[in-house]
Amino acid sequence: MLIGINCDMGESFGLYKMGDDAAIMSHITIANVACGFHASDPSVMARTVRLAKQYGIKVGAHPSLPDLQGFGRREMKMDPGELADCLTYQVGALTGFLVREGMPLNHIKPHGALYGMAARDEKIARAIAAVAKIFKVPLYGMGGTLHEKVYTDEGIGFVSEFYVDLDYSHDGSLIITREHTAVDPEAAAARTLRALKEGKVRSLQGPDVTVRAECICVHSDTPGAVDVARAVRAAVGDYLH
Amino acid sequence: MLIGINCDMGESFGLYKMGDDAAIMSHITIANVACGFHASDPSVMARTVRLAKQYGIKVGAHPSLPDLQGFGRREMKMDPGELADCLTYQVGALTGFLVREGMPLNHIKPHGALYGMAARDEKIARAIAAVAKIFKVPLYGMGGTLHEKVYTDEGIGFVSEFYVDLDYSHDGSLIITREHTAVDPEAAAARTLRALKEGKVRSLQGPDVTVRAECICVHSDTPGAVDVARAVRAAVGDYLH
Amino acid sequence: MLIGINCDMGESFGLYKMGDDAAIMSHITIANVACGFHASDPSVMARTVRLAKQYGIKVGAHPSLPDLQGFGRREMKMDPGELADCLTYQVGALTGFLVREGMPLNHIKPHGALYGMAARDEKIARAIAAVAKIFKVPLYGMGGTLHEKVYTDEGIGFVSEFYVDLDYSHDGSLIITREHTAVDPEAAAARTLRALKEGKVRSLQGPDVTVRAECICVHSDTPGAVDVARAVRAAVGDYLH
Amino acid sequence: MLIGINCDMGESFGLYKMGDDAAIMSHITIANVACGFHASDPSVMARTVRLAKQYGIKVGAHPSLPDLQGFGRREMKMDPGELADCLTYQVGALTGFLVREGMPLNHIKPHGALYGMAARDEKIARAIAAVAKIFKVPLYGMGGTLHEKVYTDEGIGFVSEFYVDLDYSHDGSLIITREHTAVDPEAAAARTLRALKEGKVRSLQGPDVTVRAECICVHSDTPGAVDVARAVRAAVGDYLH
Repeated sequence: MLIGINCDMGESFGLYKMGDDAAIMSHITIANVACGFHASDPSVMARTVRLAKQYGIKVGAHPSLPDLQGFGRREMKMDPGELADCLTYQVGALTGFLVREGMPLNHIKPHGALYGMAARDEKIARAIAAVAKIFKVPLYGMGGTLHEKVYTDEGIGFVSEFYVDLDYSHDGSLIITREHTAVDPEAAAARTLRALKEGKVRSLQGPDVTVRAECICVHSDTPGAVDVARAVRAAVGDYLH
Repeated sequence: MLIGINCDMGESFGLYKMGDDAAIMSHITIANVACGFHASDPSVMARTVRLAKQYGIKVGAHPSLPDLQGFGRREMKMDPGELADCLTYQVGALTGFLVREGMPLNHIKPHGALYGMAARDEKIARAIAAVAKIFKVPLYGMGGTLHEKVYTDEGIGFVSEFYVDLDYSHDGSLIITREHTAVDPEAAAARTLRALKEGKVRSLQGPDVTVRAECICVHSDTPGAVDVARAVRAAVGDYLH
Repeated sequence: MLIGINCDMGESFGLYKMGDDAAIMSHITIANVACGFHASDPSVMARTVRLAKQYGIKVGAHPSLPDLQGFGRREMKMDPGELADCLTYQVGALTGFLVREGMPLNHIKPHGALYGMAARDEKIARAIAAVAKIFKVPLYGMGGTLHEKVYTDEGIGFVSEFYVDLDYSHDGSLIITREHTAVDPEAAAARTLRALKEGKVRSLQGPDVTVRAECICVHSDTPGAVDVARAVRAAVGDYLH
Repeated sequence: MLIGINCDMGESFGLYKMGDDAAIMSHITIANVACGFHASDPSVMARTVRLAKQYGIKVGAHPSLPDLQGFGRREMKMDPGELADCLTYQVGALTGFLVREGMPLNHIKPHGALYGMAARDEKIARAIAAVAKIFKVPLYGMGGTLHEKVYTDEGIGFVSEFYVDLDYSHDGSLIITREHTAVDPEAAAARTLRALKEGKVRSLQGPDVTVRAECICVHSDTPGAVDVARAVRAAVGDYLH
């Protein structure tokens, strides 16, 4: 039922470090690897794919709007065709490192502002679907949004994610901030277990909202991410197939 | 004996135009497509690969040092491993568009300053060879330089190019300028025929130098490039297999 | 009454050429110089400022959203403080070249998508006003929009522009396209004269809209821009003070 | 005799943090602020200049080769005129933030690979001197190299630096690495005192080399930089005028 725990990996850039990828990889099963447009660079990508191979972790592409300074967390108006090209470029770039390591591309998961835009804007979601078709991989996204509706409609495999370290709004949407705040590992684990068992999470405003946790997402730039990943992994072990 | 006429294509960027790709494609057989680091962007790459398909032209990758402002014509000191990652990224990105169009990657040809550096610096040439191995394609380069020696030594297919629009120095090296100057189409065609028949070209300083023309290269940013390509193509028709 | 004819200048980048700045400078009186974020680079800026000095033309800054590939014509969501920093950087950079040539900064005119955003979004307009205060120069913009309201409210000098080569919508707003289409020089001149005499221009939909032409703007990337500038300059000579 | 302790500041970028500027500022007297080409972005520059003002610290510009991924520590071949434009842009950009805070520009200190290139290549040193002339400020550099010879020859004020956390080679040149290694604070302080008193430092190879410490430099990206700065400041207090 639960296909894995994914985490955004490879978000360092040049001399700048982001997250402790090696420490987190022991606790996850799937890595979403940044492709150089919101974070990462070719050498970071090379190291991250190699590290994932060592840990036996699947690798998907984590492409973004072209915005390194804003970490892909600022919305941009892009023509859908232009966006599809932009994503094809990034996913293709990642496949170069996968070919080097003899690994397949597992999935595509759009990053940051683009993830949010695709949940609300059909043209954006269709542009993303077009890229998934090229590479013949499923898309990760939020169940109950246009992610699910459009990707499924386009015949793309769709995996519904549950976020252990982001707040949900009472309308079920995700609250995406530029910098993530710390979360308590045990609370995150309990919240995740409830999402798996009951399909519910308490929203920021109080009322429960419905969620479908086919894959669990932990962010590596959340303070204390390693502890969160460890606690969540321990809690959901029985559900992982 | 002559495997084709290649030309650097897809060197526009955003609203900026460089060369008249559609006009040149009627006269060439192989396109070296820029990968976004010295020129091009994802949408230019998408259009260029599609255009090459329409014209029945083979597509190779034309990766560069990371230097958009300098059009990849300024040398940079890069660690060989870092350079190999940088090139893997670019070639991988191009393969995304090739997968979309159902086309294979034909070859890799390093661009500008990198081309010159690889002819003189063994570590650079080996880094380039490592990338060709990943993608299992031959490299285009200059016969009689480290291109030939190192690539062959690494077991990579090597194709020796003749440049119709650049000057050769009396030591056989190529004179790579930031902006190319106009050449007379008929003179370029005659020079090319002589290179094919006699394996010689007159150097800038006067004396002939030896060249091996297995593939002919025309630059799209040379003023009058379309006429040059047309004249050269007409002249070498008998040699093209 | 008419303070001048301005044109966006210095929009080349590296080897890429945009517009014929030297040809246009004979016909204008004020240059809006690109600052490297949508177009231009340090050497283009240096040459453009020097050229403006030779032609006796005033120089203002033409800063943009950070989007070289999109030529600053794609909207981005930026925090107002972050935007003000981004513009301060660009305007400051231009002043370096002005100091070198012993010229004052004449004004600031936001570019492309940012120009349109500021007309509709008060926070964006206030961020721009904050930058004009730092450099103590007026802002160029569209009369009757938040440009005028906010800049004036902030105590900044405001100059209302008339566009000779863009269409106005029936609600008075400007239609900003990614690439500009050709306009007939004589028609542009006649349209400009009418704007000066009657304060009116025919909208794309048909009905006249009110305009206030304190300064006339010609775009250098409109096809035939030199002829348009020449015709407009000839027509408005009597109004230039 | 000792004009101050300087440190490279403002080298964060977007969400990426580099160094603890606020902690270091209590221990230094002069900040070399990165200008966005090897590190920093407009908002980081804005914050850094404001922070320097709060701590009563002088601000100089720390411009670089255009190489964000390589942190300006990879050599590039640039035409001297092009380099001067590149530096004028960066220094100008910084002055925008200084104007905002009502602070003067104190000096210019080239960063990383450019610093090393200027010590050996007269054309590069002259290009840097040309930029210092525009802004009428002194240059910081290494005594006994072309920094001193060329800058002085060009009539620019020159300040000779001593590096507390980099190794000197037996020929007196500085060993510039991509990532800095940790140094012992007390050893660094003792080494600095000796440089001040005796004008000597032990080279990596063993023999002493002559140094002239008119200003002391601490790097903020050296591990333990705050402790190093504190120890050095405590040691050299009597020499600071």
